[in-house]
Amino acid sequence: MSSEIPLSGPQQCKSESQRHQASLAELAGKLCRSYIDVPSTHHLGHCPLPNRQVIAEVIADLFEVLYPGFQRRDRLNFDNILNLVGDTFERLYETLSVQFSRAFCHGRRQDTHCTPERMDSLLEVGREKVLAFFALLPEIRRQLALDVEAAYVGDPACKGPEEFLICYPGLIAVTVYRLAHALLELNIPLIPRLMTEWAHSRTGIDIHPGAKIGHHFFIDHGTGVVIGETCEIGSWVKLYQGVTLGALSFPKDEHGMLERGTKRHPTLGDNVVVYANATILGGQTVIGSGSVIGSSVWLIHSVEENTTVMIEKPKLVVRSGDKPLA
Amino acid sequence: MSSEIPLSGPQQCKSESQRHQASLAELAGKLCRSYIDVPSTHHLGHCPLPNRQVIAEVIADLFEVLYPGFQRRDRLNFDNILNLVGDTFERLYETLSVQFSRAFCHGRRQDTHCTPERMDSLLEVGREKVLAFFALLPEIRRQLALDVEAAYVGDPACKGPEEFLICYPGLIAVTVYRLAHALLELNIPLIPRLMTEWAHSRTGIDIHPGAKIGHHFFIDHGTGVVIGETCEIGSWVKLYQGVTLGALSFPKDEHGMLERGTKRHPTLGDNVVVYANATILGGQTVIGSGSVIGSSVWLIHSVEENTTVMIEKPKLVVRSGDKPLA
Amino acid sequence: MSSEIPLSGPQQCKSESQRHQASLAELAGKLCRSYIDVPSTHHLGHCPLPNRQVIAEVIADLFEVLYPGFQRRDRLNFDNILNLVGDTFERLYETLSVQFSRAFCHGRRQDTHCTPERMDSLLEVGREKVLAFFALLPEIRRQLALDVEAAYVGDPACKGPEEFLICYPGLIAVTVYRLAHALLELNIPLIPRLMTEWAHSRTGIDIHPGAKIGHHFFIDHGTGVVIGETCEIGSWVKLYQGVTLGALSFPKDEHGMLERGTKRHPTLGDNVVVYANATILGGQTVIGSGSVIGSSVWLIHSVEENTTVMIEKPKLVVRSGDKPLA
Repeated sequence: MSSEIPLSGPQQCKSESQRHQASLAELAGKLCRSYIDVPSTHHLGHCPLPNRQVIAEVIADLFEVLYPGFQRRDRLNFDNILNLVGDTFERLYETLSVQFSRAFCHGRRQDTHCTPERMDSLLEVGREKVLAFFALLPEIRRQLALDVEAAYVGDPACKGPEEFLICYPGLIAVTVYRLAHALLELNIPLIPRLMTEWAHSRTGIDIHPGAKIGHHFFIDHGTGVVIGETCEIGSWVKLYQGVTLGALSFPKDEHGMLERGTKRHPTLGDNVVVYANATILGGQTVIGSGSVIGSSVWLIHSVEENTTVMIEKPKLVVRSGDKPLA
Repeated sequence: MSSEIPLSGPQQCKSESQRHQASLAELAGKLCRSYIDVPSTHHLGHCPLPNRQVIAEVIADLFEVLYPGFQRRDRLNFDNILNLVGDTFERLYETLSVQFSRAFCHGRRQDTHCTPERMDSLLEVGREKVLAFFALLPEIRRQLALDVEAAYVGDPACKGPEEFLICYPGLIAVTVYRLAHALLELNIPLIPRLMTEWAHSRTGIDIHPGAKIGHHFFIDHGTGVVIGETCEIGSWVKLYQGVTLGALSFPKDEHGMLERGTKRHPTLGDNVVVYANATILGGQTVIGSGSVIGSSVWLIHSVEENTTVMIEKPKLVVRSGDKPLA
Repeated sequence: MSSEIPLSGPQQCKSESQRHQASLAELAGKLCRSYIDVPSTHHLGHCPLPNRQVIAEVIADLFEVLYPGFQRRDRLNFDNILNLVGDTFERLYETLSVQFSRAFCHGRRQDTHCTPERMDSLLEVGREKVLAFFALLPEIRRQLALDVEAAYVGDPACKGPEEFLICYPGLIAVTVYRLAHALLELNIPLIPRLMTEWAHSRTGIDIHPGAKIGHHFFIDHGTGVVIGETCEIGSWVKLYQGVTLGALSFPKDEHGMLERGTKRHPTLGDNVVVYANATILGGQTVIGSGSVIGSSVWLIHSVEENTTVMIEKPKLVVRSGDKPLA
């Protein structure tokens, strides 16, 4: 876009421009003073945090080596793939170890600048964690292949596994979840949530990295799905768009503060299907294996195995059709 | 990607290629003629509109100075922050004043090219508006710090305010809403909507800039939330994913056209909680302070203060489990 | 971001670094062996697939010529537009013909490398298809102008058609759907789904390219909307956020595999309105013309013309307000 600033008389322009420059400097000063008055939402003078954009690039690199040939790079084959994986691992090793060390720093609520010795030590822990994470990738690939199988078996609109691998948002969300869950189990703070929120923004599917999810998991369409932190989900489970597996209400401790870490979200057995926009709530709610929860159902109690739950039929009103009602 | 065009015999290739080039030119001409036949969806020969991509960059710059150190730039501190804010304000001043002047031009439905004098005058108004907007940023930061406080108090899965500031889509949507609402109050057309639609695309949360929202506002998960133009929302209100605060039906004027600008969306008092996928509709619908609206509730009437509204329990059907039903 | 790798003693550093380099090489080798053990999720040694990022750029180019002046380029007019369309068509012709040929290759489940002759032949078919697609664009522009008209007539919050054309996610999703549906009718595999999933990610609206949708179609807000592959939708239909037009259950063939391609999704007549979060399921379900389906309704049976369907009123419970329930 070309500049659209009009040419005015030089004298007038200069004084006007000078007045505005002075205003800008004054306004910048006022905003900076607000960092002193309202300190809770700045991060000035602290060690750097993990970076959202860097994590997005890390995810893209991980997809490249999990699903080689389906992502950015064309014409990969068994002759050149070792080079790609080797290069990617070297790049990720440098990037992730720094991001991990930043996360450790803040996960421990270290609020002042770390000493160089402490940073060295956190970075060394970060490097070991990256190696431990890479060692899990072959097993994660094995799990993801089962998720892909479940998708193709479960969706008649899918024309073939290639379509699933390049198109389906459910696979993106489940892949990021399995990576983030592995990092959480390696005790990496913050970064697992950054990863799943990247997937949430990309797909509308919000899976907390703390959830436990079995094999052959499939989410179709997916927009609006929420899977809470303490959910436990069996194998061969299928969820549709808008399904919430959420908390019922939040117990508070004696100081009136929310208790963090208790089981607040439901448990689903094996072979459960939950249809669109159903809402299942509560840490004591257990959906027995083989059960089917119908669309738009709202459920806060457990159900036995092989139970089908449906909502009541809606009321029909025949009208002349000229007075629409929401 | 390398080109995959195969090499054919030069003679054959040339005639084939010539035929295709001629076809391309003819097809381009036909599409251009459709701009004359169907003029409502082109913007040829008019003054330029505000630009979606530029507005996205403006939002990123505003986040940088509202939450310094949590966004793109690392290692900010009280020694270098004034430079960052000063530079950002200078850049935004140039960019936003042009975008504002474009919005004024179209907000006034000026359908022909503006004269240079008129553009000068709109640009000058744009500059004054940018300064007025910058003057509001410290107060907006104060409001947003309360929203962050509400989030940490309200979500047991949040491990600390740093997690909220770098991960939560609700904060992105509420921040953009508060900025867009301020611009709307400064009578800037079009750009507030461009901003909230950027946030909608990024988060799945659709807040109209015209809504009025009190302090300590928190949206958890958020995908599918819709907050209509004439909503009024008190303080300490919490919404979950999929909540609609919408219109009941649209009154039409004597010409059968929709009336624009009447109160069509609900009013929520203070300390109201609305759980996942609840739908509250109508401009006369008032939810009294302290009320709790349960998941999946559909509500088109007012409720008193401190009321809890729940849907009926669903019907359970025990089956052999081999005939799934949606 | 600057590198944060600390300087350690050279001897120690070297051995440590050597150990890590060896580990990285070993871990890369293990991941590569998993491509042999788990072959279903790699695409090594096959012809390249259509590329998601390239398709995203193609969509941006198509928007530019469908809605010239509303997208990236400013200051377009009737003197320079033919150049823009001509250049864009030449670029798209090269890009799309390659992407089409890749899609043909995989649409035919050709699992080994194509011969150069076969690639030439697929590319030639791709080029002819691109020309056929370009020939449809004037008619697609005509349809889209009707969709824009429906939006302005249907939404009282929309301040003018310009706002709709630069802001509304519904228009993005419907535009991509009409382009993708045209490509599907030209028998292009894979790419129509890549296009609608791009729109799904951007807008939260998931329209299968196989759906059949009449003129003057409008989706407001849109997050969470799902329109299944075999839907048939009349003209002047309006959908709100969270509406699912989905399948009831999936018939299986004698081998227990899902039947693909049967009519599984509902039919909507003309002038139907479906409000937020309603779910309509089943291939035999027909919503008669002029009917209104209320918010949050769950419907698996047909309704007559001019019928209004609403859910039962929710249960109100008055409480002291200190025990919130989900």
